[in-house]
Amino acid sequence: MQFTENMFADHMRGINGSAIRELMKLTVSPGMISFAGGNPSNAALEPEVVKEMTCEVLDKYGTAMLQYGPTDGFNPLRESAAEFLNTAGVKCTAETLLPTQGGTQAFDMLLKSIVNPGDVVLCESPTFLGALQAIREHNARPIAIPTDEHGVIVEAAEEMIKQYHPKMMYIIPTFQNPTGITLTLERRKALAELANKYGVVLAEDDPYRDLRYTGEALPAIQSFDEEGWVVYMSSFSKYIAPGLRLGAAVANPLLLRKMVISKQSCDTHSPTLNQAIVDAFLRKGLMPGHLERICNLYRVQMNTMLECFDMFPAGTTHTNPEGGLFVWAELPEGMDASAVFAKAVENKVAFVPGISFYPENGNKRALRLNYSMCEPPVIKEGMTRLANVIKEMM
Amino acid sequence: MQFTENMFADHMRGINGSAIRELMKLTVSPGMISFAGGNPSNAALEPEVVKEMTCEVLDKYGTAMLQYGPTDGFNPLRESAAEFLNTAGVKCTAETLLPTQGGTQAFDMLLKSIVNPGDVVLCESPTFLGALQAIREHNARPIAIPTDEHGVIVEAAEEMIKQYHPKMMYIIPTFQNPTGITLTLERRKALAELANKYGVVLAEDDPYRDLRYTGEALPAIQSFDEEGWVVYMSSFSKYIAPGLRLGAAVANPLLLRKMVISKQSCDTHSPTLNQAIVDAFLRKGLMPGHLERICNLYRVQMNTMLECFDMFPAGTTHTNPEGGLFVWAELPEGMDASAVFAKAVENKVAFVPGISFYPENGNKRALRLNYSMCEPPVIKEGMTRLANVIKEMM
Repeated sequence: MQFTENMFADHMRGINGSAIRELMKLTVSPGMISFAGGNPSNAALEPEVVKEMTCEVLDKYGTAMLQYGPTDGFNPLRESAAEFLNTAGVKCTAETLLPTQGGTQAFDMLLKSIVNPGDVVLCESPTFLGALQAIREHNARPIAIPTDEHGVIVEAAEEMIKQYHPKMMYIIPTFQNPTGITLTLERRKALAELANKYGVVLAEDDPYRDLRYTGEALPAIQSFDEEGWVVYMSSFSKYIAPGLRLGAAVANPLLLRKMVISKQSCDTHSPTLNQAIVDAFLRKGLMPGHLERICNLYRVQMNTMLECFDMFPAGTTHTNPEGGLFVWAELPEGMDASAVFAKAVENKVAFVPGISFYPENGNKRALRLNYSMCEPPVIKEGMTRLANVIKEMM
Repeated sequence: MQFTENMFADHMRGINGSAIRELMKLTVSPGMISFAGGNPSNAALEPEVVKEMTCEVLDKYGTAMLQYGPTDGFNPLRESAAEFLNTAGVKCTAETLLPTQGGTQAFDMLLKSIVNPGDVVLCESPTFLGALQAIREHNARPIAIPTDEHGVIVEAAEEMIKQYHPKMMYIIPTFQNPTGITLTLERRKALAELANKYGVVLAEDDPYRDLRYTGEALPAIQSFDEEGWVVYMSSFSKYIAPGLRLGAAVANPLLLRKMVISKQSCDTHSPTLNQAIVDAFLRKGLMPGHLERICNLYRVQMNTMLECFDMFPAGTTHTNPEGGLFVWAELPEGMDASAVFAKAVENKVAFVPGISFYPENGNKRALRLNYSMCEPPVIKEGMTRLANVIKEMM
């Protein structure tokens, strides 16, 4: 008998992988300047430090680094990561923190633990494409909450909770992907209240928080939680190295225990060595200096990109992020970012059309621009090319 | 509103974690000799080699080790792992091999890709407890195929395929966990034929294959596959180090692509560094010598345990594995392994009662004994204690 697509599970049938990953293939060609990715700068990564930490933990712990470990995580990391998150105002201890394979797995374990087929997950619009894919793979239904320049509109969220009885809200509060917008303090408090009032799990995905280049840090939504409805998800991908695949979930003890059980049959546990490397990095106190160094790099890159919008035609708008990796722009009335993308790639500059980031009914004029992967002179050149393409197409 | 268990997804409600993990807590006390685990021996792990490989790949690849990588895996590893599996008769290339977080994730991605709620998965009885948990978490229904001393009875499997129209068969063909039994060559061929004839995915979980201490290696079931129905799952956990969390799935291109998409929203990709460490290990040709060394250790341990059955009362039976980590025993008529477990733990020796490993209706007289974690003199002392406990309880 021939193996065909009929064998696939219903929930996987319509899912054909990240649209962005397909676009990205077009952005790899000689001379291309790409604002399409979302990786940290190579200049932010420190192989020598990772080497030093690896040798240190292998010397210190020996075979324990190579044996099976508890699904709950490597205890020293649970302690040091909890302490690190406490500085963000996240209420947690080693016991309420689960090391995961990046923030990605934190969200996947959360979905697996609480979502039944057909459940509604409210999310920002636009939002992180990977989260939309995860929600759909769990047979849940993502529905967009209206947003403005300060993030989710709280009144709209409350109306939608009453209307849809969602199981979960998914929110990226700080330097949001893809918009770069940061949710205000008042709205953070209000969303935590909504979650507690209506009994909706609020998944707070906060991987960019410490990439702040200007302005004051805001406390996590989770810091206003009262009865365990907010799940905080962090990641060391943007801070130390995505290739290590390490993140963390913080949840109430009942829910965290269920997430641990979910993880048992997904991957048994996160690699002990990787957990110990990040733990050593934190315990040596390397994080503050490292973040200062990379924020200094990224600040210049972000400001360079923002200044370049001067070259764009009137009617173009853009967000003014205070950190993170992305700027979100809207082209003048009547333009289509996907058409501009095609022309831009011909002219050796790339971005992601914003339409990809909407759970439904996207804005065709929007585009996402990343600045972390190009040096400032390259950003200038790329933005010049892009401005010219847009002008030509008007 | 208070967060309660009512928030959990239906498929996670009844799942409260590995029963073995709870038992294991009883087996950790001073002076305890434990045959309950399933870890490699610490003597089989090589922190110095891992350190050397880590330094080498960080020097060689630099920041590429720390950046995001493709979900499909680190290409050099896909090549070297495919070549390694070719020696087991597994038909694969880099393109049909997906690096995963241990064999555990290979099975999880496979279940996610093809299983709908209510689907039947045929499996050996007894079988690996983690697989049963994974099957249940995907809302599928594990049903036992009758087995004898040579593994799954093929005629029974065919009858059950006709009766239950399963989506999948889950088989551990070599040095099975928990029995230590190896499926015969004829049955391997016959099961591959059944899978192809009836269109049933055969998940071949083969993590112990190269831990062979006597007898001739048999080709993988997958080597007899014709139209892509057999998925081969391997792991470096028992060969190099479980803490690195690295395994591999081999599947037909259509299915493998769906598994890659499944993995995107689970953990984005496996850690690049861990993949490169295993790749370096393989490329340096360290595997054959390493396997020879650890098989020499384990052979003595296994033989020591098998000889010790002489001390057990008449009526006790046991398997005679040719490799792997486990021996399966049955107590004389009328005895209950769970009662023996309680008494054994009091007498400072532990094992796992066999009842834990059955999808349904287990054998109460059975027990699983692991020999990889104790030195031969310790095995002798532990088996003496156990024999005495059994005799006292007769």
